[in-house]
Order: sequence, then structure tokens, then C-alpha cells
Amino acid sequence: MSETRIDVNALAEQLLGPYAEVRKASRARAARPELQRDPSLPMDAHRARVLEQLGILVQEQAVQRAFPTEFGGHDDHGGSLASFEELVAADPSLQIKAGVQWGLFAGAILHLGTAEHHAQWLPDAMSLKTPGAFAMTEIGHGSDVAAVATTATYDEDTEEFVIHTPFKAAWKEFLGNAALHGKAATVFAQLVTKGVNHGVHCFYVPIRDENGEFLRGVGGEDDGLKGGLNGIDNGRLHFTNVRVPRTNLLNRYGDVAADGSYTSPIASPGRRFFTMLGTLVQGRVSLDGAATSASKIALQIAVTYANQRRQFNSTSDTEETTLLDYQRHQRRLLTRVARTYASSFAHDDLLDKFDAVFSGREDTDEDRQDLETLAAALKPLSTWDALDTIQESREACGGSGYMAKNRFNQLYSDLDIYVTFEGDNNVLLQLVGKRLLTDYASEFRKLDTGAVARYVAKQVGSTALHRFGLRGVGQSFADVSDERKSANFFKDPANQRALLTERINAKVVEVAGALRAAGKDPVKAATAFNENQDLLISAARDHGQLLRWEAFTAALAKIQDPATKEVLTWLRDVFALSVIEDDLGWFLANGRLSMQRARTLPEYINRLLARLRPHAQDLVDAFGYTQEHLRAEISSGIEGQRQDEAMEYFRRLRASDNAPVSEKSLRKSGAKA
Amino acid sequence: MSETRIDVNALAEQLLGPYAEVRKASRARAARPELQRDPSLPMDAHRARVLEQLGILVQEQAVQRAFPTEFGGHDDHGGSLASFEELVAADPSLQIKAGVQWGLFAGAILHLGTAEHHAQWLPDAMSLKTPGAFAMTEIGHGSDVAAVATTATYDEDTEEFVIHTPFKAAWKEFLGNAALHGKAATVFAQLVTKGVNHGVHCFYVPIRDENGEFLRGVGGEDDGLKGGLNGIDNGRLHFTNVRVPRTNLLNRYGDVAADGSYTSPIASPGRRFFTMLGTLVQGRVSLDGAATSASKIALQIAVTYANQRRQFNSTSDTEETTLLDYQRHQRRLLTRVARTYASSFAHDDLLDKFDAVFSGREDTDEDRQDLETLAAALKPLSTWDALDTIQESREACGGSGYMAKNRFNQLYSDLDIYVTFEGDNNVLLQLVGKRLLTDYASEFRKLDTGAVARYVAKQVGSTALHRFGLRGVGQSFADVSDERKSANFFKDPANQRALLTERINAKVVEVAGALRAAGKDPVKAATAFNENQDLLISAARDHGQLLRWEAFTAALAKIQDPATKEVLTWLRDVFALSVIEDDLGWFLANGRLSMQRARTLPEYINRLLARLRPHAQDLVDAFGYTQEHLRAEISSGIEGQRQDEAMEYFRRLRASDNAPVSEKSLRKSGAKA
Repeated sequence: MSETRIDVNALAEQLLGPYAEVRKASRARAARPELQRDPSLPMDAHRARVLEQLGILVQEQAVQRAFPTEFGGHDDHGGSLASFEELVAADPSLQIKAGVQWGLFAGAILHLGTAEHHAQWLPDAMSLKTPGAFAMTEIGHGSDVAAVATTATYDEDTEEFVIHTPFKAAWKEFLGNAALHGKAATVFAQLVTKGVNHGVHCFYVPIRDENGEFLRGVGGEDDGLKGGLNGIDNGRLHFTNVRVPRTNLLNRYGDVAADGSYTSPIASPGRRFFTMLGTLVQGRVSLDGAATSASKIALQIAVTYANQRRQFNSTSDTEETTLLDYQRHQRRLLTRVARTYASSFAHDDLLDKFDAVFSGREDTDEDRQDLETLAAALKPLSTWDALDTIQESREACGGSGYMAKNRFNQLYSDLDIYVTFEGDNNVLLQLVGKRLLTDYASEFRKLDTGAVARYVAKQVGSTALHRFGLRGVGQSFADVSDERKSANFFKDPANQRALLTERINAKVVEVAGALRAAGKDPVKAATAFNENQDLLISAARDHGQLLRWEAFTAALAKIQDPATKEVLTWLRDVFALSVIEDDLGWFLANGRLSMQRARTLPEYINRLLARLRPHAQDLVDAFGYTQEHLRAEISSGIEGQRQDEAMEYFRRLRASDNAPVSEKSLRKSGAKA
Repeated sequence: MSETRIDVNALAEQLLGPYAEVRKASRARAARPELQRDPSLPMDAHRARVLEQLGILVQEQAVQRAFPTEFGGHDDHGGSLASFEELVAADPSLQIKAGVQWGLFAGAILHLGTAEHHAQWLPDAMSLKTPGAFAMTEIGHGSDVAAVATTATYDEDTEEFVIHTPFKAAWKEFLGNAALHGKAATVFAQLVTKGVNHGVHCFYVPIRDENGEFLRGVGGEDDGLKGGLNGIDNGRLHFTNVRVPRTNLLNRYGDVAADGSYTSPIASPGRRFFTMLGTLVQGRVSLDGAATSASKIALQIAVTYANQRRQFNSTSDTEETTLLDYQRHQRRLLTRVARTYASSFAHDDLLDKFDAVFSGREDTDEDRQDLETLAAALKPLSTWDALDTIQESREACGGSGYMAKNRFNQLYSDLDIYVTFEGDNNVLLQLVGKRLLTDYASEFRKLDTGAVARYVAKQVGSTALHRFGLRGVGQSFADVSDERKSANFFKDPANQRALLTERINAKVVEVAGALRAAGKDPVKAATAFNENQDLLISAARDHGQLLRWEAFTAALAKIQDPATKEVLTWLRDVFALSVIEDDLGWFLANGRLSMQRARTLPEYINRLLARLRPHAQDLVDAFGYTQEHLRAEISSGIEGQRQDEAMEYFRRLRASDNAPVSEKSLRKSGAKA
């Protein structure tokens, strides 16, 4: 073990982020058995338990935080999400069902409705008197919300909207609270009045009576058993000419007067639609946080086990090697610890940005777009990483990792859906990619085409310089005699930043060039876009990694303790260099790294991992979860006890006269004799 | 759609491999509901159901195939595995519980026991009169079987072995049939006689009486709920001075006479141990097959859905784009179709090799070692790939992929354990890596050290040539004017083979060089080995990919139909080039590819995928599973019906006078006016 230790307490406090106190309070709640999942419960009992748990949250005033003070809330948007995120440690079903009720259903009333709606429906939504479903997704249109087929047609005679499902593909699907508990729903439908379709709007629609029976015209089905999250009663809903009063239109961004005339504060139907959706970004933000927490939990279990478990003896006849001393095991777990730190710091930035926008502190159109891009870039990475981290952690614990009592499969199955809900990850990254293209294009907004052409020629020239490896060769000649120079290059944050940034720029330039070449014919443009889809999505992913790198690097600056700072710097380097290693072919093929430098990279990462190894336990302990959160037998110390007992047995045996000699050693000494 | 179609029937027949008839019969069985999993059953009922299903297999003579004709078997080793593998389509729990009973428990009696043992125990093991556990793994020693701590000490006075568990880490763990159904166990323990430990041997030990009560000295625990495979009653066993007759030692490879003297046909304790373990290789072989089948099932579901599901409109106002027309979706699914083909053909070779050894046709020590290496190289790849393929397939089906009725999560959870049982994947790959090192070293066995030094110098020279990119630059100058030349390079199988082979050789040379430099001091040698562990494991993985490539390429030669041959050649190219793309950084950094060629690779793969796209459904239909095997609502055509109904609705609406106009188009025409 190294002599210097990191300051675990200070680091733990930093990792709690900008809402540390709220997060701690929520973790304390998640540590209580009555709010946790009982893995023995079948679906029906699990659903009932989670509904009860929502009631406990209401009683303890744990859900009001995001709402206006006039309704007993605190107008604390960032803190509210931090609080909900931590419920993932109790049961992801609880986190998501709470998200459905207070984030989506009540959130739609709050953000899409106006004062009258708030007064009328928010109190009962907040108190759970009205459990509600968020009826946006249709079975035929998952991520393509603009294309939902449910209609809300205004009837001037009765001053009502007629909500209607025209065919089976338009059934609302996968809605939490729809199968059993929901009494009302916020329904997204094409608003049609006076023969004009004004696009998707949201309506407050009662769906069940006091006895839990569907109201007239409303029907549905239970989704039944799912891959996970079985504490939530997901289901389908459909509407057959269901009439609601005109005032049930949540009319903040678009209204219909009694005479059927439509008005909106946002002229462009496209921008109006994205503005409405943008108010619901909190779902994505909180999934980013919850997924990062799940990764922390998995790693805290797996690293603890890897520090106790011994397997095979390589350097000693009497003591087997601890798993985490194996290079491969370090590769498997410590690179993921580094990534999880990056994800955690990036999430804190996202929460800050979210709070700035929703509190109104920084709430321009551009701020909202930045927030949405940030969420769309980070949520895919953290949710995919959570699955990858949980799975690798489970495998790193071998057969024990497969036992339900060690938690991994349960977490994996619950988190699985995070990668495709609140926006399919690939669709979200494509949104980010389009934003990158727009930003790139906006650099030329005021230039004439001649200037654009010159810029492109310059880019091509620069790319050609890279392509022919001239930079690369330069690196090669400079470095070839000294591996240390190569290491110095890689650990320089300016170089890390340059590599991570140039990769995005170069890919975006490439896609933009292909789109420009395709011209304005819609079919040709769509074909060109599709032919570059994979590249554009990879640029978006790279953008997310850069955001994480920047957050991690900014977090380093805040660390006081020198030992902690040094170790965390290694960890940031492992994160950055693993990201580069994962795409090493690109950096080489495009002349951003020399062959010589590229060859030294894996070994340099290995050396950093070996340096981090003595700090591994401290690094995961700083995540701050307790045994009540981990709830895995193998993280309890049981493995260390077993190993100690075994070693003690053999120690005594060797000291006694009864120890059998091995045939192998007899043969060896026989051969010598 | 392309005009030429592949010959699906002929391809399906080829994919069934060398045991086509046996495989079909087993698939017919797997299509019967009474042999399938009922997802609604909780653990206890699921366990009881699978036990019953084993009884059905016995009644239908579906389990005897591998056993000697004198016991009613067919001595058909390869066919037996093919038959068991297909049970994964019914329920992985059924496949694995059958594997425990007839592959492991009865297999140990057959392969480690001798004639008397066969006569005494095989009939009841075959008929399931004696359900049995295979008690090898200990909680403290997963993959390190040589280190199990259970002892079997010979007592000359009573002519008995005393089976004993000295401490908690030595409890036998994760054993199928141990929690409930097992009446006996084949127990692996350190054989001690006359004060000498002769290493791990296997003993037949009765564990429960007719009433299911543990016999005296035997104890255990139920493992309870697992991440999956909950139709199997896994549990722990421990032994407190349990006495069994001397003749309960399964004595094919080592025996103890009444007077306690030990004899073995294999002098070296190490080689004896590996020979014993080698007889149990069938577990790994069958997991390779079952995992490949699971990938086929997942892809058949996901590709079918992707061919029906539409989402977003890019080129048409009235028709949305089919998922599989998106480049990213092709990347996600079709690269995995290619890999699954490669895995399927490689598995056929593995089955052939397995049958050759176990039938005695080709059964030298070297054949056995080759078989073990082959199994250890392929099983990790196919089991990891199965998890990756199932997960990507589930995500490609969005929220629908998460519903239990669409099967993915169930398959994933069951297959999860395949990556760490019958040998942890990383441990298996390390074995392969060591074999690669041995083979490399054996090239020098007869050379003096001077020659070795010269060889190494030559290698270093050649590597240096690569390192300075001289080859690469040569490629660059040759190709730079013509992308087609680059494509011709990549599709040439000789180049594919050379790239895939050189990568392994170069990595092995590098590791061997580091080990040689470390010298013979055990601690230094172990340190050097650990510092190269990740590289060595990656070389082993590369070796597995080469084996798959060779199997795929050999399979192409057998295809008669020209259209099928052409399409399958593209598919082989996608497999090979995806493997190269995944490790592109290595090929560039080590001068095996020029920058120019590397840059053209992703686009060339994309073009191949677009060419394959019209054949996607045929390619997965050739896997040959029916709706009875897939059992996923979304593979039934339901999505196509929904889409057709929706399109028909809009067609009619457009043709009528009632179609609302969109505000967007009004604004556009308004702007024009």
C-alpha cells in the first residue's frame, strides 16, 4: 500500500455535489428498509409496495421541493432532482414511479399549464390524491413525439376537445400508473381546430373513477411483466371520442379560444413543439444522475470484493493473489471508477445548468437549448455506462455476482430501460449531432459563400496535413528516443483537451462537407445524412466525453488536499486516455497521434492503474454509500473473513506434524536426489 | 430490394451443421410448450417444472446419445451436444440442468470412473433415478480448481475415504441439483493417502436419502434466487468427515489400493490434473453452441421487427422510414448477424473436433490439448457476444424490447452466467494465451540460445519496420489516388487472414520478449507476466476471432448457389473488417495498415452493410427458428399490421375532405404568398 492516503471524507463531500444536504437526506431515506425493494415480492405485491412508498414520501414532505412555494414547495429545481435520483439506491421502481408522478405528470401540469390549472390540479397531484399517467409515447411512435397520431379536435358547439385514438399504433404505451393506479393523464395529441392541425399539445384527461374503473371512452391494457422496474404498473391507454372541457388544454404555449381560434406566444410550430418538450427535460437530467449512482453502487461492491477475494497464487506458495492485484482486474474495474467520477462531476454541472434555467436565473432560449443539448449528450453516456459497469462488476465477482443477494442483476434489469426511455440514446445523440452541425454552420452565417468555400479548403488542407501523417511523423521523430516524453505528452491536460476537441471538430467538418456536397434536394440530402449517421452519432458521443473531461478537470482545481489532488489527477488521466485508447484508430488514421505515441499508450494507462490500485478502496468508499445502500453480501466483509479463516487453517496445518506433503514436491525432490 | 435472393433453405441446412438431424429433432422438442419456460412461475414452481421436463427428456430417449451402447446410448458425442444445445430455445434452465445431470454428473462417472462404476451408477444417473450434483467449485476457489481445499483422506483401517470440508471457503458452491433434487454428488477433493497429497480427484458421494434428507455429515444451503436460471436448484454442500468406500474413488486416472498405495497411469501430477479436467470439456463446448443459438434468436426477433417498424420520415411526407434503413441500425444489427454466422461456423468445427477426440478417432494428447484450446478460445467470445447481441437487440426494439413478452431480458438474465461458469472467460482466455506462448516457445525448442537471440532480433527488426510505418507509407503512396484499391485490399481474404494472424503473432512475440527479459526469478517472472496480462488476453481473443474467420471462410467454399455465396462473402467481409475496425489503433500503431486505408475502412463497412440490408431478413430466417422458438410478440408480424393499419388510415384521410391541414404548411404557403 502506498503511504499517502487520499482524504476520503473531503472527496466524498465534493462528490455529493451542489446539493449535498438534500442528497444526504435522500440517502438516509433510501437506507430505510420500508422504502427499499423486497426482492422476494412478485409483480403485484411489488407494485402495491411502491405505491405505498410514494405515500411515505408525501407524508415526509420529500416530493414538494420543485413546486412553487404557494403550493408548499420550495422552487428548488436542482435540489429536487438530486433528491429523487438517490431513490435509485432504495429501488429504481420507486425512483421512476416518483418521477412519473411528480416529474412527468405533475411536471406537465406545472410547466405546460397556467395558474388556473395549477390551482385546480397541482395539489392533488402533489399529494398523490390523483395518481397520474404521462401519456406521450405511442406504440407506433416511440421517440418521434411530433408524429403521435392521437387527436384532440375542438368542438365549438360544446366548447370541448374530443380526444381520439384513430388506430392501434396510436395507443399510448409504456405509461407508468396507466395499468392500475392512474386517475388522470396528461395526454399529448395533435390539436385540431377549425380544420387546422397546430401540432402536439398536452391535455389533462381524467381516466378512472373513484373505484378505479375506466371512464367512458377510455380503455387500456396492463403491460404486465417487464424486464425490470416491476414495481411500476406500466400500461396502455386508448381514447374513443373522449370529451374534455376546452380549459383542459394545458395552454401555456398554445391556446384555443371559445370560438375555436388558436393563439400561441411562439409563432413557429417547430419551435413551439421543442419548447414544450424542453420543459420536460428534467427526466433526462435525473436519469443521468440515477444511472451514475447505480454505477457507483456496483463499483463499490465489486472493488470491495476484489480487495478481499484471492484467487491463484503467482508469487507465493502460501498466499494467493488478491483479485485487484491482477492487471486485467484493474483494467476492468479502475477504468470504470475513473469514468464514473467523470460522469459524476459532469452531472453536477448538468444539475447546475438545469437549476439556472428552471429557477429563471439564466433562462434565455439559448440557455434552454444548451441545457437540452447537455442532457441529451450526457444521459446516453451515463445510462449505457451504467449497464456496462454493472455487468463488468457482476462478472468481476464471478458466480457470487450472479446471486440475487449480491444485487447486480436486479440493478441491471431495472436500469436496462434507462437507455431507451426519456429519449432513445441513439436518437438523443443524433439530436446532439445536429446541434453540433448547426453550431458549425452558424460560424458562417454572416460570411458569403466565397468565404465558406475558402474556410472549407483550409480545413481540407489542415486535414490533409493530418492525413499524410506529417504531424504524426513530427511527433515520431521527437519522441522516438524517450518514452518519458510520450508520457509527458499524454498527461498534459492541454494535449488531452486538444485531442478530445479536435476529434469532434474533424468529424463534424467531415459530415458537414458531405451534407453540403449533397445539396438541397431533400432525397439526396436525406441520403447523405443517413450515410453519415454513424459518424455524426460518434461525434456526439465524443462531445459528451469532452464535457465529462472538462467537468473532471474543473473539479480537480477545487481539491485542496495535495495527495487527493495527485490521485484524482491520475484518475482523470486514466479517464481521458481510456477514451482516447477506445478510438485510437481514429487518432492515428487522422494524424493526431504518432505511431510511437500510440504504442506507448496502453502501457502508460496500465502504469497509471497500478499507481491507483492502492487507492481503489478509498476511491469507491468516497462514493459514500453504506451497506444499507449496497445490500450485497459480498460487500459486507464476508469474503475477507472466509479468506482469513482459510489462511489461518493452513498456517496451523503447516506448523503441525500432520500436513501432507504434495506428490509434486516429492517428485521434485526425488528428481534432485 | 435487390433482385437476387439468397437460397434460404440451403443456407439454413448448412447452418444446422454436422448434426443437422439431431438438431432438428431437438428443436422440434424445444417448440413444445410443455418443455418451455413459463415466465409467470416463481422460483419454486419453475424448479419443479424443469425437474419434470428432465423426466420427459428421459422418457423420450433424448439424453442417452453420448453414453455407451451397452447402457442404451449411441456413443454419439458430437450429436449429443448438438441436441442439448438446442434446449436453450425452450428454457436455458432446462439446458443447464440437463447439462448438470448428464454432462457433468453422469459425465464424471463415465469419463473419470471405470467399468464397475459405470455398471453401478450410470443407469440410475441416466434415468434420473439418481439426480446428481457436480461438486467441484468452492466458494473460495472459483476457477482455480487445483486449489480446492476439500480433502479425501484414505483410512487404511476401514478402507474408506474421509471426505472433509476444513473451513467455510471450502464449501462446494453454485451446484445445480444441490439445493433440492440431488441424491448423490461427484465431489472433487485433494486425495491424501500415506501422508501424501496426490492432488484433486473425483469421488462418488451419496448426499441425500430417499426422503430427500441429507445423509450424516453432509450439509448445505440453498443459493436461493439468482440473476437467472431460476429453474435450477443451485446450492452449497459441505462435508464433515463423510466416509465412502475406497472404490468410490473414480479411478481412471489415479487409484488407491487397499493398503493405501497410490498409482496412476499419468506420472506428472500436473498433467494428470489437466487430463482429468479435460474429459469435462463438453460443458464449454455446449455453452459455445447454446450462446450462439441465443444470439440467433435475439437477432431473428430484432431484425424482423426492424424490417416492419417505421420511425421518423426523412425522405417522404407520407411514409416513415423502416428502422433497418437507417445506417446506425444496420451497424447495430447487421454487424452482429455477421459475427453470429462466424460463431456458428466456428462452433461446427469445435463440435467436429470434440467428436473426433471423444469418439477416439483422433485422440492423442495433442488432439485433446487442441480441443481444449479451441473450446477455451471460442466459449468466451460466443458467450460475451450473446450478452452483447441480446442487449443490442433489446435496445433496437426500444420499449417493446423491454416487455417480458418479447423475451430479451429473460434470455439475457439466463445467459449472463455463461460468461463466468465452466471457466471464467478471462481465465479461459489466459489459458489460451499461455498456449500461444508455449507454441511460440516450442518453435525454438531445438535451437541454441544464439539462434533464439537471432530470431528475436529479426522479429524486432521486422517490428521496427512496421513501427516506423515504412510499410504503411508504401501502402499510402500506392493507394492514395484510388479508394477502390483500398476496398480491393480489404476484401481480399489473403489480406484479412494476414492482418488477423500477424496481430496475434506480434502480440505473442511482445509478451514472450517481456517474459524472457524478466528471467527466471519467480517473483520477477510473475510480475512481468502480470504486467502483460491484458495484452496476452487480448492476443487470445484475437486468436478466437481468427478461428472464427477461418471457419467462416471454409464455410463459404461449401456454398453452391452463387447469389448466396456472394452475399455470404460480403457478410464474412463485414465480420473480418469489423474485427479489424474494433482494434484499428493496433493495426495502425504497428504499421499493419496505412492511414489512408484505415480512413476508408468505416465507410467501406457501411457500404457493405447497405448491400446486405435487402438480405437481412433472409439471413436471420436462415437461422431456422420458428415463432414457437422466438416467442416474442414483436416477431409475429404484429408491428407490420399496426403500421399498415396506420398508413391505410392516413391514405383514406388524405383522400377525404376532412383531412386537417397543418399549421406548418399553412405558414409556408402564407410565407410564399
